[in-house]
Amino acid sequence: MAVGTQATVKSLDPVDLREIGAPMILGNAYHLHLRPGDELIRDFGGLHSFMGWDGPILTDSGGFQVFSLEGLRTVEESGVEFRSHIDGSKHVFTPESVMQIERNLGADVIMQFDHVIPGQSDEAAARDASERSIRWLARCVAELERLRAGGPPPTTTLPPPAPLPGTTFPLPAPNHPQALFPIVQGGIHPALRRDAARAIQDSGSFSGYGIGGLSVGEAKPDMYNILEIVDAELPRDRPRYLMGVGFPEDLVEGVLRGVDLFDCVAPTRMGRNGTAFTRDGRLNIKRAEFRADRRPIDAECDCACCTRYSRAYVRHLFLADEIHGLRLLSLHNVHFLVSLMRDARASLLRGTFDGWSDAWLQRYHSRTEPAPA
Amino acid sequence: MAVGTQATVKSLDPVDLREIGAPMILGNAYHLHLRPGDELIRDFGGLHSFMGWDGPILTDSGGFQVFSLEGLRTVEESGVEFRSHIDGSKHVFTPESVMQIERNLGADVIMQFDHVIPGQSDEAAARDASERSIRWLARCVAELERLRAGGPPPTTTLPPPAPLPGTTFPLPAPNHPQALFPIVQGGIHPALRRDAARAIQDSGSFSGYGIGGLSVGEAKPDMYNILEIVDAELPRDRPRYLMGVGFPEDLVEGVLRGVDLFDCVAPTRMGRNGTAFTRDGRLNIKRAEFRADRRPIDAECDCACCTRYSRAYVRHLFLADEIHGLRLLSLHNVHFLVSLMRDARASLLRGTFDGWSDAWLQRYHSRTEPAPA
Repeated sequence: MAVGTQATVKSLDPVDLREIGAPMILGNAYHLHLRPGDELIRDFGGLHSFMGWDGPILTDSGGFQVFSLEGLRTVEESGVEFRSHIDGSKHVFTPESVMQIERNLGADVIMQFDHVIPGQSDEAAARDASERSIRWLARCVAELERLRAGGPPPTTTLPPPAPLPGTTFPLPAPNHPQALFPIVQGGIHPALRRDAARAIQDSGSFSGYGIGGLSVGEAKPDMYNILEIVDAELPRDRPRYLMGVGFPEDLVEGVLRGVDLFDCVAPTRMGRNGTAFTRDGRLNIKRAEFRADRRPIDAECDCACCTRYSRAYVRHLFLADEIHGLRLLSLHNVHFLVSLMRDARASLLRGTFDGWSDAWLQRYHSRTEPAPA
Repeated sequence: MAVGTQATVKSLDPVDLREIGAPMILGNAYHLHLRPGDELIRDFGGLHSFMGWDGPILTDSGGFQVFSLEGLRTVEESGVEFRSHIDGSKHVFTPESVMQIERNLGADVIMQFDHVIPGQSDEAAARDASERSIRWLARCVAELERLRAGGPPPTTTLPPPAPLPGTTFPLPAPNHPQALFPIVQGGIHPALRRDAARAIQDSGSFSGYGIGGLSVGEAKPDMYNILEIVDAELPRDRPRYLMGVGFPEDLVEGVLRGVDLFDCVAPTRMGRNGTAFTRDGRLNIKRAEFRADRRPIDAECDCACCTRYSRAYVRHLFLADEIHGLRLLSLHNVHFLVSLMRDARASLLRGTFDGWSDAWLQRYHSRTEPAPA
């Protein structure tokens, strides 16, 4: 999923994302509740209509964001009181209020409100947060039932946005169900993760499962270990979503461990900073060695940047502080991850994923920068 | 012309400009000489190839830029010595060196190196600068002859860029002649302008004429008066280019006085600051009244912003500091000016320009902001 926290994938247009083939966009309940307000978005017919994206959308619940507000929030069993990072105003998130916000936003997939803790938390803290998340899941399920009984998610009185080129997804039907994904927590503690995955399945049937609280400071082997444990527990016929991950190599390692769905700010954030993903590792386009380099960022890439522009031109745009440069690298990086997942899927379907992923990781790690021209 | 000073129209892609129907892009010899260097661009086959734009390009000579470097430059008859605004390095521009730079850039139309003075300069200073510009024109003509004899402008060993959608212009032929436009100077002094227009015509035959040194601080009636004087002097079958102008109303007033070609940073600069052009005047999208406004920026506009997004959404993007917002308004504003010129041309061809321009100006000036919804 391309990350569109504030109802836009940074520097890109939905038309770009359709051309890239991005299958889904992620929005964020915390950010959109604060600005422009989920009720405003509801009145515009939901997030699809407001932001002009007619493909699938998932909204994160904001659990990660409110628990990141260290010193600006207090946690109780009922929910979390916090101050806005924008203007310091007071807000309360409960499982119920978050379901109401996500109902207003009208995404196709909505995440439960969960208790997120730092990656290196001890077992007692991790157990407390995981068990609270499971109790909050039951409240989310009940509240969503109540909201569904009260009527459909937002529909629009506006005309639908002009269809994007190559549209393959219709806007959600007026009465689409909004799939609720639970989130497996439990830190880096195998027993807690196993317990959480089982307790969640005991509490209902879900269309997919989030795996939260990883890539938040723990060591990579710990993350891989936890993924393997959770992989063994979750139903094999439902998608698993590894939240907030990641870099190209993390996607390959994640797929290797059963993950289907990812999101991360890395492609656009790194793109804005001048770093491009390539099949030969990362490349910092501002380096002097690219001053007169006629090659595209990645010779095997067919994105709008690599088919039209040289490294020298993109480097010039960055040195001249031109927005076009950061836009081109954002576009390239999102395209790179979408293509990577498409290739991974193709090799899975062919039954050649193990060999493909070995070769891919070896090449990617073999150089951090391509050799000079 | 869309302004692409540093080999990019700020925040837009050539694909956007082709979709908008922008007929031509302006680049700048001063900026491109300093960064990335005109010799680098020559080695990439010229500006068209370097920046991926296969339509016509005009380069300004940098006269305006080097004369703006008050305190950082010294003027002699031979040329101007100045310090770079980027790193303070010393450079010399002469009519000859500027022709060499513009040859390297390889634009279709290149402007002479001229002596530009502030809008309120007295007659003695204006006469001195205008007469020097005419002497420098002769040196530009001679140097361009010499360069043409030495071989063609840059051609590329690179494959041509992927054609833009709806391409109508071929890349310049390998031996395209590069039309040199002289620049009429003379401040706000009618006799000087008349003398300059006549002296320029005495010195050769040109494909088009620049009108410089306007919209640089003088009063609007002075600018209109000078345009009328120059209009009467220049040959009627060659395009006249009013340099650095302007806002929508300036374009209409300019066409009314015989101008064919304009350039200005206004559409992208104002777009980045949240100001949109509309048929009912300018609109500051950040104003609170647009918080829940479902209407497009301009209901009669068919640009990619107005056909897809509400004022409320664009306002949200600006308040959230999202690049997508300033890109959408830049795109809208450039589209607005291109459409305006297209409409002006259509009414000229129908013989209804006077009535059309009266009505257009009256509506545009009647409100500075559209009424709230």
